[in-house]
Amino acid sequence: MADPSVENQVNGQAEEDLVNPWTVSSSSLKGVDYDKLIKKFGSAKIDDGLIERMEKLTGKPVHHFIKRGIFFSHREMHMILDLYEKKQPFYLYTGRGPSSGSMHLGHLVPFICTKWLQETFDVPLVIQLTDDEKFLWKDLTVEETIELSMKNAKDIIACGFDVNKTFIFSDYDYIGKCSEFYKNITRVQKLVTYNQVKGIFGFDDSTYIGKISFPAIQAAPSFSSSFPHIFGGNKKVPCLIPCAIDQDPYFRMTRDVAPRLQYLKPALLHSSFFPALQGAQSKMSSSDPTSSIFLTDTPKEIKNKINKYAYSGGGATVEEHKEKGGNLEVDVSYQYLRFFLDDDEKLEKLGNEYKSGELLTGYLKKELITILQELIADHQKRRSLVTDDDVKQFMTPRKLNYNY
Amino acid sequence: MADPSVENQVNGQAEEDLVNPWTVSSSSLKGVDYDKLIKKFGSAKIDDGLIERMEKLTGKPVHHFIKRGIFFSHREMHMILDLYEKKQPFYLYTGRGPSSGSMHLGHLVPFICTKWLQETFDVPLVIQLTDDEKFLWKDLTVEETIELSMKNAKDIIACGFDVNKTFIFSDYDYIGKCSEFYKNITRVQKLVTYNQVKGIFGFDDSTYIGKISFPAIQAAPSFSSSFPHIFGGNKKVPCLIPCAIDQDPYFRMTRDVAPRLQYLKPALLHSSFFPALQGAQSKMSSSDPTSSIFLTDTPKEIKNKINKYAYSGGGATVEEHKEKGGNLEVDVSYQYLRFFLDDDEKLEKLGNEYKSGELLTGYLKKELITILQELIADHQKRRSLVTDDDVKQFMTPRKLNYNY
Repeated sequence: MADPSVENQVNGQAEEDLVNPWTVSSSSLKGVDYDKLIKKFGSAKIDDGLIERMEKLTGKPVHHFIKRGIFFSHREMHMILDLYEKKQPFYLYTGRGPSSGSMHLGHLVPFICTKWLQETFDVPLVIQLTDDEKFLWKDLTVEETIELSMKNAKDIIACGFDVNKTFIFSDYDYIGKCSEFYKNITRVQKLVTYNQVKGIFGFDDSTYIGKISFPAIQAAPSFSSSFPHIFGGNKKVPCLIPCAIDQDPYFRMTRDVAPRLQYLKPALLHSSFFPALQGAQSKMSSSDPTSSIFLTDTPKEIKNKINKYAYSGGGATVEEHKEKGGNLEVDVSYQYLRFFLDDDEKLEKLGNEYKSGELLTGYLKKELITILQELIADHQKRRSLVTDDDVKQFMTPRKLNYNY
Repeated sequence: MADPSVENQVNGQAEEDLVNPWTVSSSSLKGVDYDKLIKKFGSAKIDDGLIERMEKLTGKPVHHFIKRGIFFSHREMHMILDLYEKKQPFYLYTGRGPSSGSMHLGHLVPFICTKWLQETFDVPLVIQLTDDEKFLWKDLTVEETIELSMKNAKDIIACGFDVNKTFIFSDYDYIGKCSEFYKNITRVQKLVTYNQVKGIFGFDDSTYIGKISFPAIQAAPSFSSSFPHIFGGNKKVPCLIPCAIDQDPYFRMTRDVAPRLQYLKPALLHSSFFPALQGAQSKMSSSDPTSSIFLTDTPKEIKNKINKYAYSGGGATVEEHKEKGGNLEVDVSYQYLRFFLDDDEKLEKLGNEYKSGELLTGYLKKELITILQELIADHQKRRSLVTDDDVKQFMTPRKLNYNY
């Protein structure tokens, strides 16, 4: 898995950050070196100029995920803004691999940003649930992955997407309903060689053939504009994909084949990884429950996990902390506050006081626990109101509502 | 492409017969050495014992394709006969890759045998049209391969299959209608590695990923018994696949994965290849029109092609022919008569007279021309009566009519 990794200098030694759709790890407590990742992947940094342009065109401030650099990298976002400026259409595409019934905090990040983009730009959205991928990669049956899709769909719907503008689909369900989807999958599969996916995804000769051809299935929804029942068949409508940067290899491949299929290349907005409770060397992962705060956790579980596991950037003793101050870059509670504390002023104040040694990690944890207890209780309340009928509505192939 | 080939001793030199789903060639004028192929593929010869058992159980003589060794090899046909004897169910599965709108004589062979099997054993049948395969392998668009599927479906229906017992489907159409089909495809794709398909099909690193995963799509209809709308979901109903032996690599792979999916292994009946007009070193192929007699040819075209191209096993001069006799094994007209002249006595008489030198090739050609002109005119007449509505009926997923 050579290609998607980046080098990261730690303690004078050359160490590798590993970033691909299946593994994210860094030897640095600060996590992945994102500037190096941008260079390695060949994407562009979300800079002040882009943010100013977004704010000017939409007439509102960007989401704090973008302002604070949580979404930090992009491909062709200016092309999307050009279209928006000319009142020409684009759509959003994002997804989730339903490997577990309970999603965690990190899984919310792309969906929160996608919801903000849908509201801000007033555009349609397709969300892919790759149940087939999880069947191929995990020790799960087809039926189990389909059940996980349905559970995850409820959590996604609870994020507040507009049912008139949003189509959620699971691969197993949608491929069996729409010949056009499978046709586009084979069109991509006819343009990508084993050599290419070996280079991009690190497959080898012992890889199962389902995995080898899967990247085309994640690529295909980038060409949803040609589906008559979704967008009316206009091939020249591109998509914008908000996703964590570990998914970029799929879309580099997609961008490579797009012109050969007479489609426009998808644009991307890349987020950084949501750190594990134990620190930014790995991302939060459902397969390690002690690393994760789940959307199903109780207030007590949230409190206990943060108090017990959240990696501290504070001094070894109170005296040392007061003298040297806390390390914001590695403190997991502070990092989580960057994601979920909306109030910029308060975040800055907490940061400064922690850095100076005035505040202890315990205080940051207390603030974070309150915020997450509220966030997750709100989510659980909204999710409890999502019915099977709502899921059916969101997952029915139909023409989405939009003005172009 | 090492595995599916067999060695054939010609002129004291070791020469390779090449037999795989894309290429059939032999350096011998007699064509592929089928006894060696049986050994290499690990199948079993259709022997007198098997033929006697078939005739005893069904109460009628076997089709002359079987009696004359045109279908010469099998896998587990005795298991199928055991089921038939116990009045337990099985079904037939065969297929066609729609690479060309006009099918040729060789393409009829498996369908003629399949029709005989359907009538004789009174069993349901599924016929796969692999339009996706032809898109992936050929310089054709998706739309073109779908159109070819529909054209070929009409020729297949014209063979006389029972609409109440026969489901014809094209992959592009059926995958978009039936989640169960795609589910079974991924179940196979999760059990077969790149290494395995490399060994079986000769793929290499520059092979497109669509080709690499395609074998699972040809395998999946072997597990059609689980599709609720075709067979009512009984996983324990096996299929019998009549096909040319070049397709065996797909089904060796299928038989390998079947038990791991709790399905029964498909049984097979293998036919030899229908020789090109130029001789048995290659098979009749649509991509070389001078090698083929098409089902759309006029009586005049049939006559001209046979007279002009059909390889003769006769002597260089009339004198030499009278003295040494004709060579039945390489004479294409005689070989075609073996396929299409029903009358055993007449075939034997013609053969003996040709071998002795009494009859010239010209006489065999004349006999063959009459038979093929009639066969193809009959086919054309039946095909002209096949309507789009008939195609729709055959291609609608529905419960097939059978007694178990």
